[in-house]
Amino acid sequence: MRIDAHTRLCAVIGNPVEHSLSPALHNAAFQAAGLNYVYTAFRVEDVPACLAGMRAMHGFRGMSVTIPHKIAVMSHLDDIDPMARRVGSVNTITHANGRLTGTTTDGPGALRAFEEAGVSLDGKRVLFIGAGGAVRAVAFAVAELTRAESITVLGRTPERVRAIAEDVATKTARPVAAADLATGLADAVAGSDILIQGTPIGMHPKPGESPVPREWLQPRHVCFDMVYRPNKTRFILDAEAAGCTILLGIEMLLNQAALQFEQWTGVPAPLAAMRAAALDALGEHP
Amino acid sequence: MRIDAHTRLCAVIGNPVEHSLSPALHNAAFQAAGLNYVYTAFRVEDVPACLAGMRAMHGFRGMSVTIPHKIAVMSHLDDIDPMARRVGSVNTITHANGRLTGTTTDGPGALRAFEEAGVSLDGKRVLFIGAGGAVRAVAFAVAELTRAESITVLGRTPERVRAIAEDVATKTARPVAAADLATGLADAVAGSDILIQGTPIGMHPKPGESPVPREWLQPRHVCFDMVYRPNKTRFILDAEAAGCTILLGIEMLLNQAALQFEQWTGVPAPLAAMRAAALDALGEHP
Repeated sequence: MRIDAHTRLCAVIGNPVEHSLSPALHNAAFQAAGLNYVYTAFRVEDVPACLAGMRAMHGFRGMSVTIPHKIAVMSHLDDIDPMARRVGSVNTITHANGRLTGTTTDGPGALRAFEEAGVSLDGKRVLFIGAGGAVRAVAFAVAELTRAESITVLGRTPERVRAIAEDVATKTARPVAAADLATGLADAVAGSDILIQGTPIGMHPKPGESPVPREWLQPRHVCFDMVYRPNKTRFILDAEAAGCTILLGIEMLLNQAALQFEQWTGVPAPLAAMRAAALDALGEHP
Repeated sequence: MRIDAHTRLCAVIGNPVEHSLSPALHNAAFQAAGLNYVYTAFRVEDVPACLAGMRAMHGFRGMSVTIPHKIAVMSHLDDIDPMARRVGSVNTITHANGRLTGTTTDGPGALRAFEEAGVSLDGKRVLFIGAGGAVRAVAFAVAELTRAESITVLGRTPERVRAIAEDVATKTARPVAAADLATGLADAVAGSDILIQGTPIGMHPKPGESPVPREWLQPRHVCFDMVYRPNKTRFILDAEAAGCTILLGIEMLLNQAALQFEQWTGVPAPLAAMRAAALDALGEHP
């Protein structure tokens, strides 16, 4: 990696950011693609000043935005793409000639992970378990960009579940069902083909737990866990044991990063190099 | 160079910056010292927004400031060290906990280049040829930090020469002589020991010229050229031929950068690695 006065900077902002895998992923991608870019991480509290600074720094090309700033950045951008506007969050900023454009690659990244795995959502019954920001982003993408037969959202907080379901349904004109995680999960799992796990259950440092009892999983289920620490959660291990098709959280992480990379550089993302770097950074051995 | 979420950023700002050697120097230094830092360059027009952004980006540790922003940055900093305040320019910003501190390493860097070369200014008659910002910075350092016997400034614009001489004399209580470059150079060179060339004469793309006729140079002269493109100017080649001690412009560039490095990292700068990187970037072969 040779850095000079022409090197362009990209960075992730968030608070905290010190555990972010994005620098490892993106620097591996820039190197594999032979591009004169470098990627760092900034802990940020003052979002407006940070974005004004980015706008003033020619050569600061791209920003990944993570928790808790995905909503706050929106009022300081010059353009926001339609899907990000509907979702109500931005995870990617691209800087060109003093203008900042916001997009979201969370939902499209998840869809690309399904595509990469050879799984089509067309005609499938899709169940989201959880009602956080990532579920919201992916639910919009499933509603807007696929021909899924049905979309259901389950969570523990009725207002949040209802808000996602109603918002997606209203803005995309696709029906979305909502139910309670505690009482509705068994029926919902039985009536679904694609299970998208979006709660923090099973995440490091509590890797032993899963929201879905193992005996409910059938070989027809495609099981996707948004959690990527650990690389294989209890939910994924159970799904493997039950003969399901599985999709690891790291694939969503990789594909949302790949879409960012492509927005910043205009060239196809070297996904294999990014995957190797991510697994290495997670302490897995590719 | 392995960049992760803990990597600290430093950068040069200016307009233009695309020919800056600073990224080459500083990245070589970070690597040689085994520090998790990276250094890029930003072309900047909006200085206040740029500095507000730096303040908001935790992990953006240091900034080199070059033309035309060395004066403009001063009103947007939280602290300015006394010498930089007297000189009236800042070339180095250090960021700690949301506070930005400005210093100038231009003058101290030049003095350190003399020290590195084993040349003491004590008891010497120092002549500056030129009256730009770099001469001003080094003249303050010579007046404040050495026991030079005398300081003389020669230039083509009488008001600028007088302004530097009076300002240095007033603020440091050291007498400084001023004279006209066209009419006073012969006598000034004859009456000096240290010649500091600070005009753009001899700079790429007009490398054949020198402000000092070769026959005026004596072996007792120490000849320092602030110009570093080309590495050896006509003035330096003439001085070598006349048997003078010479000091190349790159040594000032290196030593001002070394002082920046030390302010940002707290560890001694690996000067040999920086010199090799600078010569390599200049197309010279160390």
